Amino acid sequence: GLVRSSDGLVLLNGHRVVLRSDLSNLKGKVALLSGGGSGHEPAHAGFIGVGMLSGAVAGAVFASPPPGSILAAIVTLWQAGVSGVLLVVKNYTGDRLNFGLAAEQARAQGVAIDMVMVADDCAFGQTSKAGRRGLCGTVFVHKVAGALAEEGCSLETIVSRVTKAVKGIGTLGVSLSPCSVPGCLPSFQLPAGEMELGLGIHGEPGIKRSKVASADEVVKTMLNHMVDPSSQSHLPLNAGDSVVLCMNNLGSLSNLEMSVVTGVAIRLLEERGVFVARVMSGSFMTSLEMAGVSLSLMHVDQEILRLFDAKTTAPAWPNLSSTSLSGRRWSTEPAKRVSEETMHIPGPLSAVMQKALEAISLSLLEHQEELNGLDRAAGDGDCGSTHALAARAIQEWLQGHQVPGCPGQLLSTLAGLVQDKMGGSSGALYSLFLTAAAVPLKGQSDPAAWAKALQAGTEAMKRYGGAEPGDRTMVSLTLSGTLCEAELGAESTRYLTAKAGRASYVGTDHQTLPDPGAVAIAVILKVVCETLSGIGH
Amino acid sequence: GLVRSSDGLVLLNGHRVVLRSDLSNLKGKVALLSGGGSGHEPAHAGFIGVGMLSGAVAGAVFASPPPGSILAAIVTLWQAGVSGVLLVVKNYTGDRLNFGLAAEQARAQGVAIDMVMVADDCAFGQTSKAGRRGLCGTVFVHKVAGALAEEGCSLETIVSRVTKAVKGIGTLGVSLSPCSVPGCLPSFQLPAGEMELGLGIHGEPGIKRSKVASADEVVKTMLNHMVDPSSQSHLPLNAGDSVVLCMNNLGSLSNLEMSVVTGVAIRLLEERGVFVARVMSGSFMTSLEMAGVSLSLMHVDQEILRLFDAKTTAPAWPNLSSTSLSGRRWSTEPAKRVSEETMHIPGPLSAVMQKALEAISLSLLEHQEELNGLDRAAGDGDCGSTHALAARAIQEWLQGHQVPGCPGQLLSTLAGLVQDKMGGSSGALYSLFLTAAAVPLKGQSDPAAWAKALQAGTEAMKRYGGAEPGDRTMVSLTLSGTLCEAELGAESTRYLTAKAGRASYVGTDHQTLPDPGAVAIAVILKVVCETLSGIGH
Repeated sequence: GLVRSSDGLVLLNGHRVVLRSDLSNLKGKVALLSGGGSGHEPAHAGFIGVGMLSGAVAGAVFASPPPGSILAAIVTLWQAGVSGVLLVVKNYTGDRLNFGLAAEQARAQGVAIDMVMVADDCAFGQTSKAGRRGLCGTVFVHKVAGALAEEGCSLETIVSRVTKAVKGIGTLGVSLSPCSVPGCLPSFQLPAGEMELGLGIHGEPGIKRSKVASADEVVKTMLNHMVDPSSQSHLPLNAGDSVVLCMNNLGSLSNLEMSVVTGVAIRLLEERGVFVARVMSGSFMTSLEMAGVSLSLMHVDQEILRLFDAKTTAPAWPNLSSTSLSGRRWSTEPAKRVSEETMHIPGPLSAVMQKALEAISLSLLEHQEELNGLDRAAGDGDCGSTHALAARAIQEWLQGHQVPGCPGQLLSTLAGLVQDKMGGSSGALYSLFLTAAAVPLKGQSDPAAWAKALQAGTEAMKRYGGAEPGDRTMVSLTLSGTLCEAELGAESTRYLTAKAGRASYVGTDHQTLPDPGAVAIAVILKVVCETLSGIGH
Repeated sequence: GLVRSSDGLVLLNGHRVVLRSDLSNLKGKVALLSGGGSGHEPAHAGFIGVGMLSGAVAGAVFASPPPGSILAAIVTLWQAGVSGVLLVVKNYTGDRLNFGLAAEQARAQGVAIDMVMVADDCAFGQTSKAGRRGLCGTVFVHKVAGALAEEGCSLETIVSRVTKAVKGIGTLGVSLSPCSVPGCLPSFQLPAGEMELGLGIHGEPGIKRSKVASADEVVKTMLNHMVDPSSQSHLPLNAGDSVVLCMNNLGSLSNLEMSVVTGVAIRLLEERGVFVARVMSGSFMTSLEMAGVSLSLMHVDQEILRLFDAKTTAPAWPNLSSTSLSGRRWSTEPAKRVSEETMHIPGPLSAVMQKALEAISLSLLEHQEELNGLDRAAGDGDCGSTHALAARAIQEWLQGHQVPGCPGQLLSTLAGLVQDKMGGSSGALYSLFLTAAAVPLKGQSDPAAWAKALQAGTEAMKRYGGAEPGDRTMVSLTLSGTLCEAELGAESTRYLTAKAGRASYVGTDHQTLPDPGAVAIAVILKVVCETLSGIGH
């Protein structure tokens, strides 16, 4: 799948080996070969490309690849005219032996070859004879060595520079779950609510188990352990140091969780006075579907950073920028609104609009239980309560503010109120109506402007609500806008210019439109009509 | 975490809004804003960068963002001097309403703004009133619209081009597990061994459940359903069409599994005569930790491909190449070994070496149970059986081949035999020894050459095996090499030049070195000495 998806890669027939498809571009340069057991994807084949690996050899899941395949990869690279082959090997016995054997056989055939061992594991206070394990820090080595090889450095130079860089790399993992080799049982048992610190990428045991803690505490524990000088495998880390941080998803941690732990790690490093130059966060060396994360650090100077930043075509390399992260400004203030509303100046319409708003609020509060009841039949039973929120918000606003003489200004203000205080889809729909309806009523209040306002508001509700007449979805309020308009028909402008109302409206509507949202609108319109009618008489 | 890791992003204070950190570069261009509920990371903020989104607004997990935050983002972009703002919205009621409301409010303030709705879901045969859902195909829209905006196209042009492109986008998902909103129970129940086809990115129900099948069958079912003309929401797909394929990990599928389904999808598309131009495979629009995959297709022509290939700095955009995949050669033949072994020419030493090999094989087979027994005490009890594999391989080889007169050639041949037939760490260690020991014995067989050979072989075993004297690890065979050498001391060259042997060796060694690997080596050396001694007399 990976090879088929990436035009920079080819499969070596008869072997589980992936090579760069442009081997001729390697002529005279050092080729980089890595690999190991499968189950760590995108490692290692995903890191093949210009500026990273020239090839990768994969074993079966969690098993070292056969020396014959490693040798086939070496010989194919050599025959392409490379000046030497560097093997980057994670420190596991099987990989040491198999890559070592292939290296010896290649050397016996006259290939210029060398090997760099990566052992970045910071888990164990006392290292065993097998030594520290090779973990996600290996990806740093692929990048740095790959950039050096692409620049045309000799095998000796690359080995010496990489051997130095490797000393500045450390990794520690934590996991909330085991992983399952296909066809096998989970690699270990971890009770729900527990996590294991320092485990390997094949589910090998770690150093301790504890209760799952907050992201802050977990990352703090990891960092403290990694840099603890009393541990033989610690990574020295001091204030003033510059590092690249790699937060590696071991498998099935969600990307949301990955961002949380990444943010914490950056903050904790900065609190130690460490300068975080670059951050990688994602899946780089996984353990199948293990739910966990490993944290890798690489000490960097300007030269290592330059190599880290060098371009690569490797499909699994992330789209990073080459600017340092610590010290930059990472938040900004929102801009002020485009046109500040002019002051609310009362006018001839202020009194009647205030009266209508008071009556609407009161009537919606009176109908709260009726609307909730109607809503219980089809929805979640809160239609009345939601409208009551809006009603009380309007009452509160009326106590502290003058009603402007411009209806457009009033509708804009109401749009903001219901959006903030009413919430949910109904709040959004009312706000949509009011916002769109306000536009034709800025500076105008003749019947034609009110008609346009009603039309604009209804269209906005229909456009974004997506409902059609006859629907009973959560956006059926839109529908009520449409139907009300039809019902009101030519009468609509009369109402809006303070003419008589009608009494039978609610009753009729109740039978044909038991939708509580529509009933609420009917309640509002009835009150508006009554208010205007009272004024008219 | 994402913003802290990416120098191209800033957080808008007081809002869950991420914007490009270089807003001044957007002056005069159209800004692209997207967003929606959280839990879909890296969508949407991961797609912010030059050539993709200008900003993204996030709600709580699986909840539409508040209109106030959307408006704050729009206004901040507008005040930075953009020529217009395009909202890219997935077709969900909440997002339609909230983005719609913010758009209306921005328009009321004089912002040039428009909205593109993405509804790429191919699940339902009959589409509901709410319409098709917006899924991972949205990422294609971000890319195409972003490239157009970066080129300086007008808002109208972008809307018209994207509206056309959207019609050629389709997506279908399949899942093996639900996801869990933090603090809530799993979003639905799916019995082990079952999978659900066509579900949404928030765990909304799909179209059918079935038994988990092979990757081939699952992808075939998905493709067949997506392009079925009898389904209202199908994506037309014909032989000769060119597409971009996006295989999207919904959360916790392993990368190994992702590569498997990606490979199958490419193959099945090509079998339909479809030309696969580009492939994305990874996490683009997830559903927290849901174990599943969605398959998105976008019809492309040269122009859409050019926009798809355009550079972007968005951190979640993968490192793709811009060469078409279908039709390319994606496998290659391994090169022949560097120096072909010359013919095996018998010589004066052939007879004695053949005799020694026959005796070694016989003796190892005789000691099989003893070695297994010793190994059961400390290891997995197969040391004798493993050596028997090598012994039988040598016997078989002797029947069909002449023993060469050059000891170096013989050791190289034996190295290959034990590597292939013995296997495991012991096979690798013996092969390492023999490969390294062969080098000084090519063309030479004097005592000094044999001494060098023993030294080189032992060093190779120690270097790659990593064991030190006194270890009892799986590589303790290395140790036996070292100890035997010490034991033999100055005598060693004598044995190798056909002098007398010693009888007490095994007995002594058995007591001080109960390691079965060491005993096996002692068995071999004893037989060699006896053979040479017999010849000498």
